Amino acid sequence: MPTVEPETAPARVEDDGPHADDSGYRQPEVDVDAMRRLLDGRYGDVRDLVRDNLTEHAQILVDQEQMTTADFRERVKDVVVMMAETGQTGMGFPEEYGGGGDIGASIAAFETLALGDLSVLVKVGVQFGLFGGAILQLGTRHHHDAHLADLVSGRTMGCFAMTESGHGSNVQALGTVATYDAEAQEFVITTPDDTSRKDYIGNAAAHAELAVVFAQLEVGGERHGVHAFVVPVREDGRVLDGVRIEDCGPKMGLNGVDNGRIWFDGVRVPRTALLNQFAEVTPEGRYLSPIDNPNKRFFTMLGTLVQGRVCVGGAGINASKVALTIATRYAVRRRQFEATDPDQEQVLLDYGMHQRRLLPLIARTYALHFAQEVVAGQLHDVFSGPGPIEQGSDEHARRMLESRAAGTKALGTWHATRTIQECREACGGAGYLSENRFAALKADTDVFTTFEGDNHVLLQLVAKGLLTDYAGEFEEMDQLGMARFVAGLAVETVVERTAVHKLVQSVRDLLPGGDTWDQEAGLLDPNYQLAMLRFREEHMIGGVARRLKRGIDQGANAGAVFSRVQDHVIAAARAHTERLVLEAFVSKTAALPDGDLKVALNLLCDLHALTTIEADRAWFMEHGRLSSARSKAISREINALCRKARPLAVDLVDAFGVPEEMLRSPELLGWPIGSDH
Amino acid sequence: MPTVEPETAPARVEDDGPHADDSGYRQPEVDVDAMRRLLDGRYGDVRDLVRDNLTEHAQILVDQEQMTTADFRERVKDVVVMMAETGQTGMGFPEEYGGGGDIGASIAAFETLALGDLSVLVKVGVQFGLFGGAILQLGTRHHHDAHLADLVSGRTMGCFAMTESGHGSNVQALGTVATYDAEAQEFVITTPDDTSRKDYIGNAAAHAELAVVFAQLEVGGERHGVHAFVVPVREDGRVLDGVRIEDCGPKMGLNGVDNGRIWFDGVRVPRTALLNQFAEVTPEGRYLSPIDNPNKRFFTMLGTLVQGRVCVGGAGINASKVALTIATRYAVRRRQFEATDPDQEQVLLDYGMHQRRLLPLIARTYALHFAQEVVAGQLHDVFSGPGPIEQGSDEHARRMLESRAAGTKALGTWHATRTIQECREACGGAGYLSENRFAALKADTDVFTTFEGDNHVLLQLVAKGLLTDYAGEFEEMDQLGMARFVAGLAVETVVERTAVHKLVQSVRDLLPGGDTWDQEAGLLDPNYQLAMLRFREEHMIGGVARRLKRGIDQGANAGAVFSRVQDHVIAAARAHTERLVLEAFVSKTAALPDGDLKVALNLLCDLHALTTIEADRAWFMEHGRLSSARSKAISREINALCRKARPLAVDLVDAFGVPEEMLRSPELLGWPIGSDH
Repeated sequence: MPTVEPETAPARVEDDGPHADDSGYRQPEVDVDAMRRLLDGRYGDVRDLVRDNLTEHAQILVDQEQMTTADFRERVKDVVVMMAETGQTGMGFPEEYGGGGDIGASIAAFETLALGDLSVLVKVGVQFGLFGGAILQLGTRHHHDAHLADLVSGRTMGCFAMTESGHGSNVQALGTVATYDAEAQEFVITTPDDTSRKDYIGNAAAHAELAVVFAQLEVGGERHGVHAFVVPVREDGRVLDGVRIEDCGPKMGLNGVDNGRIWFDGVRVPRTALLNQFAEVTPEGRYLSPIDNPNKRFFTMLGTLVQGRVCVGGAGINASKVALTIATRYAVRRRQFEATDPDQEQVLLDYGMHQRRLLPLIARTYALHFAQEVVAGQLHDVFSGPGPIEQGSDEHARRMLESRAAGTKALGTWHATRTIQECREACGGAGYLSENRFAALKADTDVFTTFEGDNHVLLQLVAKGLLTDYAGEFEEMDQLGMARFVAGLAVETVVERTAVHKLVQSVRDLLPGGDTWDQEAGLLDPNYQLAMLRFREEHMIGGVARRLKRGIDQGANAGAVFSRVQDHVIAAARAHTERLVLEAFVSKTAALPDGDLKVALNLLCDLHALTTIEADRAWFMEHGRLSSARSKAISREINALCRKARPLAVDLVDAFGVPEEMLRSPELLGWPIGSDH
Repeated sequence: MPTVEPETAPARVEDDGPHADDSGYRQPEVDVDAMRRLLDGRYGDVRDLVRDNLTEHAQILVDQEQMTTADFRERVKDVVVMMAETGQTGMGFPEEYGGGGDIGASIAAFETLALGDLSVLVKVGVQFGLFGGAILQLGTRHHHDAHLADLVSGRTMGCFAMTESGHGSNVQALGTVATYDAEAQEFVITTPDDTSRKDYIGNAAAHAELAVVFAQLEVGGERHGVHAFVVPVREDGRVLDGVRIEDCGPKMGLNGVDNGRIWFDGVRVPRTALLNQFAEVTPEGRYLSPIDNPNKRFFTMLGTLVQGRVCVGGAGINASKVALTIATRYAVRRRQFEATDPDQEQVLLDYGMHQRRLLPLIARTYALHFAQEVVAGQLHDVFSGPGPIEQGSDEHARRMLESRAAGTKALGTWHATRTIQECREACGGAGYLSENRFAALKADTDVFTTFEGDNHVLLQLVAKGLLTDYAGEFEEMDQLGMARFVAGLAVETVVERTAVHKLVQSVRDLLPGGDTWDQEAGLLDPNYQLAMLRFREEHMIGGVARRLKRGIDQGANAGAVFSRVQDHVIAAARAHTERLVLEAFVSKTAALPDGDLKVALNLLCDLHALTTIEADRAWFMEHGRLSSARSKAISREINALCRKARPLAVDLVDAFGVPEEMLRSPELLGWPIGSDH
């Protein structure tokens, strides 16, 4: 619920903030094409290719409603294969196997797919991201030659069999076993019990011929941790002996993806089935790995899969754009009540409440878009660097990337859930009809907050990185280990090691008022806005460290200590990620040449920054960084910003570049109900 | 997102509030049966009858996933008719027509239906609540004799054709016309244009034989406003001449209900088709009504339909119970990580974050349950009173009931949306599978926030009542009229006329500290909690009045003034309803005899009250009613309350009495994944 417009002192006549009537303000004209080019960034051509493909296959949005599940699954597969032929799904693979050789392009393509049917998106993610990505990143030449060309073209479909029923987020503890039989030079893959069945595996129930199976490697009676194997599961549509596959059955959404459960009963695969980028078993049964530490090895393997998280975050952000485009266009057509007086006829978006519902979400979508651009760019740079990944010199940078990907994924997918819901409600009963898109958007995106890492678990990962400064050993620590590690440090050490510590200091130097910067700086000064978010982040991290330390020092059970601090831990991670998001938006905007585009983006950036502060204004007040008067001033300023953004709203959503065919909603958008525009 | 656990001062060792270690606290034992009887209230037998019926027809939860839409619609209809035979759907009708003669019982029965498939619920609501309710309340003996027995038994299906495409919440402006032809002694029903087609009409696309049609009555060239008519639309499954019906097509959920659009092209019905409780047309064409004022007549007619809102609010609250039961039971089975140390093995609900996610929602569900009991009881009393409704002496009380019903419906249905979403996420990927209930719960309840009155529109109605003290003319005022009306009063008048004004004073007298009651009173003193909510309500209403008055006094356009104040208006209405909800919970609890049940409910009531204050703690700080230290203390107290409620959680949800068959979720609940309990 939007914040209450605060009651005003008698002397103040309107609720306008000091900036609402700035005589210097001139409403910008938004050049929709230019804004769209800015959003599309360096991969505009790739995004346009995907938009064209989506438009060509727009009928699938109708098929999703009308087909049986079995037919729809086939239809989705066919569309995926047809899209593969255009090259859009293979951008991240080496050119010699039919790929595009550009990881950044592959992320841009995937994100853009989220404007269309999301079963197609997820099927693409499973086939080319998870399955294909595992072969590419965990395998070596042998596996590349054997599989990449076929999977890039969609001739061979595969699945990614990692998650198990009983082990959820704790991949390292999974139960499937791969035992090396030196005699036969084969691995024997077995599911020891029902908690170790592979679960929710996309592409498994109907289409996958191959599976990348994660299992505990056992050689000569010794366990070496989780490794990945290429295992045939189906041939000519028939499930192979020793493999049992069950359909997960109907789901809330994404029913074009065939999720299944898989059990292995002594399935034999050759020694070369081990994806051996990071470890090898010799024919005679010796285990070799360039990474001695088993934990480090495990997390290095897992780290190569970070692209999936970046992609899902981007998909959430882009799905939000579809909902906002529909709801905003509807809001400038529809009237809440009949006109009783022509002067007072107002469309929905003229109402303060409706502005408050939609405009901050548009601003936040822009913010997350630019934050996503940063993380996708970093991923591209890290994974496009020279030489095998494990030799990359900057492990610290890679851990920061993983952390940033985790945080952005969490915020981007929660944003999708919230935005799509708000937009549905803002379209009233019409929003409930399937042809108006919200039904599929809601149902299909709902699981984004869970898959590729549950958001709460991901934020704990982010916090662990912050608290340990991405120490070499941080990946191996569980939450309790992290609590003990932090307890071993001075709190000042924890705080000073975080990047934010120096940032807070440097931004304070930019602001007027010295120690009272938080009272003197202008609300629309981005340095003020950033300083607030940095202060919060630093303060929260310090607070978590202090509480963990105190608890452990007093000899309390580490589990109980962590349990009590957990929401604080998650809040610190969220505060960190919010700061990264705002920084991305501020620096994108600052880099623009002067002009209307910059004016419009500054407006959105202010709206995003202030609504972010407003949402947690209680915390800022509790921690002495916001007076109640200034808190109220922020709410007023947001209302003023909403009124300024109102005339730009349609252009701002049109710049998202959602193809008209993806919007559907003929009655919401197509003919004038209760409006003569 | 739950509030951040605030960082603590160095002197404080744990984050426990002052009450967490109260030596006097003894953990209560919850007698599940006794708690359930308390929740079920005076209609326990009725609720059990419905539970039995739901269990008997539990297969429909599976059918919903597996059947085609056409088959599922038939199946839902059949179940509705079978349930009708047990009497559960006809509780509100006079006994002489096969009904139960008890309005309160009919609400209890309807609410309980929300534990099962919600298409059945909505179909029941359409047939017996909307269609049947209109015949009963707006019709007279003639209509009762002609239709009630058949509709109560389900032999005749009907629909309620009020909403039009272009007129949404503004029923008074609808476009369908009923012209009286004195010659033929018939009304001629016509849809003049596409914005006046009837839309989203449940039961219309397949099953209704009769429709109660709302149309502008025109007699002898004169318009008399909206009236209702019984119009045959189908015979032996064939749509009648002059009637055109279109299917609304697939929806996000509730696909067992056949929603349709209806157009009328000069359809003739006899003079007696007018539901003439409040108005009559004589054979020769004279219009007569006991209510002279056309606006008052319209709102009197509409007011008889308040039961629908009460029912939908209750349905939202009960659907939440299903989600919470599943998520809570899952949370005491599932572990987030493998046990590395047996002493520290924790199930999900042992984590502070998970407690914060679920336990306040359980507390709020209890609160809303008791608030719903109050509004349902008031409805029963008002509608069971002697004599025709329009002669009821206490119109003021009826307006307050309508307002309360509107507010409770808004809060109850938003609660459902939020709770079901949180519970789905708290069950991870498994929550996404249809067999685990959340898919249907989410999709089916989504429209609850919109139908039977959009929640934002309803809260504006609540605010209008508060601001005008339910003045006789208040129903006729649109928002702009309301703004002008309030501007004509002194602000003090507005505030003093509200019921809350005296309540704040009286509760302050109960609290220690005089003017500093907000700092001195104990956090767990219900008088303190109520005083906070009352203060907020009064302050917000005063603020709205002041801003409206100032704007209008300065000659600003009333539309612009209202637009700027709108979110404040809605917040005031919400604050009012929150106060009613807490009052209901406090007085229910206070009336219990001492014992464990009371201890447990006090715990929940405190948890609900403090989380309600915490959620808006920024407002309280901004308005001088909460110091930052006390605000932090409230958050700590909530954490302590969560830890106290943790051991009771399963019993508290089991007391909701959701039949096991309604939970499904075999894998979430049925066998021990990652747990040996």
